Amino acid sequence: MLSKNEIKRITSLTQKKYRIQENLFLAEGVKLVSELLQSAFEVYHIYATHAFETNLPESKFTRISDAELHKISQLVTPNEVVGLFRIPARQLSEYKGLIVVLDTIQDPGNLGTIIRLCDWFGVSQLVCSLESVDCYNPKVVQATMGSLTRVDVLYTDLNVYLENSKLPVYLTLLEGDNVYETDLPQDAILVMGNEANGINKGLIKNDYKTLHIPRFGQMQQTESLNVAMATSILLSEFKRRKS
Amino acid sequence: MLSKNEIKRITSLTQKKYRIQENLFLAEGVKLVSELLQSAFEVYHIYATHAFETNLPESKFTRISDAELHKISQLVTPNEVVGLFRIPARQLSEYKGLIVVLDTIQDPGNLGTIIRLCDWFGVSQLVCSLESVDCYNPKVVQATMGSLTRVDVLYTDLNVYLENSKLPVYLTLLEGDNVYETDLPQDAILVMGNEANGINKGLIKNDYKTLHIPRFGQMQQTESLNVAMATSILLSEFKRRKS
Repeated sequence: MLSKNEIKRITSLTQKKYRIQENLFLAEGVKLVSELLQSAFEVYHIYATHAFETNLPESKFTRISDAELHKISQLVTPNEVVGLFRIPARQLSEYKGLIVVLDTIQDPGNLGTIIRLCDWFGVSQLVCSLESVDCYNPKVVQATMGSLTRVDVLYTDLNVYLENSKLPVYLTLLEGDNVYETDLPQDAILVMGNEANGINKGLIKNDYKTLHIPRFGQMQQTESLNVAMATSILLSEFKRRKS
Repeated sequence: MLSKNEIKRITSLTQKKYRIQENLFLAEGVKLVSELLQSAFEVYHIYATHAFETNLPESKFTRISDAELHKISQLVTPNEVVGLFRIPARQLSEYKGLIVVLDTIQDPGNLGTIIRLCDWFGVSQLVCSLESVDCYNPKVVQATMGSLTRVDVLYTDLNVYLENSKLPVYLTLLEGDNVYETDLPQDAILVMGNEANGINKGLIKNDYKTLHIPRFGQMQQTESLNVAMATSILLSEFKRRKS
């Protein structure tokens, strides 16, 4: 039986300030929670209906009713289990390979999709500006469909990060170089900008390279590609060249 | 002043059966409605607050209050104008270039995104199975952000369509050929499958070619790419080869 206070504490994790205070995040559904349980993430507590099988110790596990699940779930269709996990401490480390940097991505669905894309394309480090949406926002966690266990997401000051980086930096800009005609190295930093405003002007430096995806349609009115679409095409371009 | 019946008639267009009955669809917001007014789409009636400027004849235009706009709008934040437009009659015609075919895409956001992608990559014909989500669903219309005016969307029996087609057919399948290692012609049909089940088995024929996007990440658990992501990468692959 869940107390009112427990329900309040669990659902408070939908808000960033309580996630930071508790150092916990919330994940739901059989597939996602099972993947998190098998990953390096540390489980704090699992709440599940009788349908969910587990060998977790009693101290970390509570059986709940369907009615209780509905009270703590953020999903339209709750799916057996809600888990609380510790937010891991992530540290910037020197890293080879392709790194994706996001400048002020605000839509949880976009961030979730980009984390999935990183997973698919073998990008294990994703660096976000401090103004970006929190990757432990429940909407992001659910949208990643488990990819959060395979991609390290870090938040830092991008000015400092890019200045100290030893890898070549590629900024995605509308007036950038045609990606199809550009040589792309395996070790690089790819920077994607905000949904509406692109990359913050303060981040643009002359010694950085630039990229853009040319439009093949003829019409000027065509909206620019959504940031997740653009990321998928650019990751494909970086990766295909070693295949 | 809008009557109750008028409000009911307008909002009924969120349902496919009433769209078919009336042969009308609904579009909202200044930018989208303005683009539709300048396109080949035939306007039926526009409802707008005083902020919206237009030189439409009185017979096709009604000034409404903000309160009335809220009553007929499907948006969280209504934006000045709701327009009703005629659903155009689309006919399959012989066509050169790249054609995208969708087999039972069900999510309105995915269809809207794919229409935007077609627009960006200069694909002007999109053929959907009869089971696919309706492109005049208001969620699709809004997600296309005007691209619906530049991409012809048709619904037909895909078995018949593919059998009668003279262009080479490329099926996107998990076990398909590596797209990065495949020669792709400029005139072709690219078939994308349902979000959960992929391409219907009944559509798969031995004389069709197959494509897939290889996964670069190492983990087997990684979810397959979302259909809109996969479409963006494949359209990029088809188009870059003539750039």
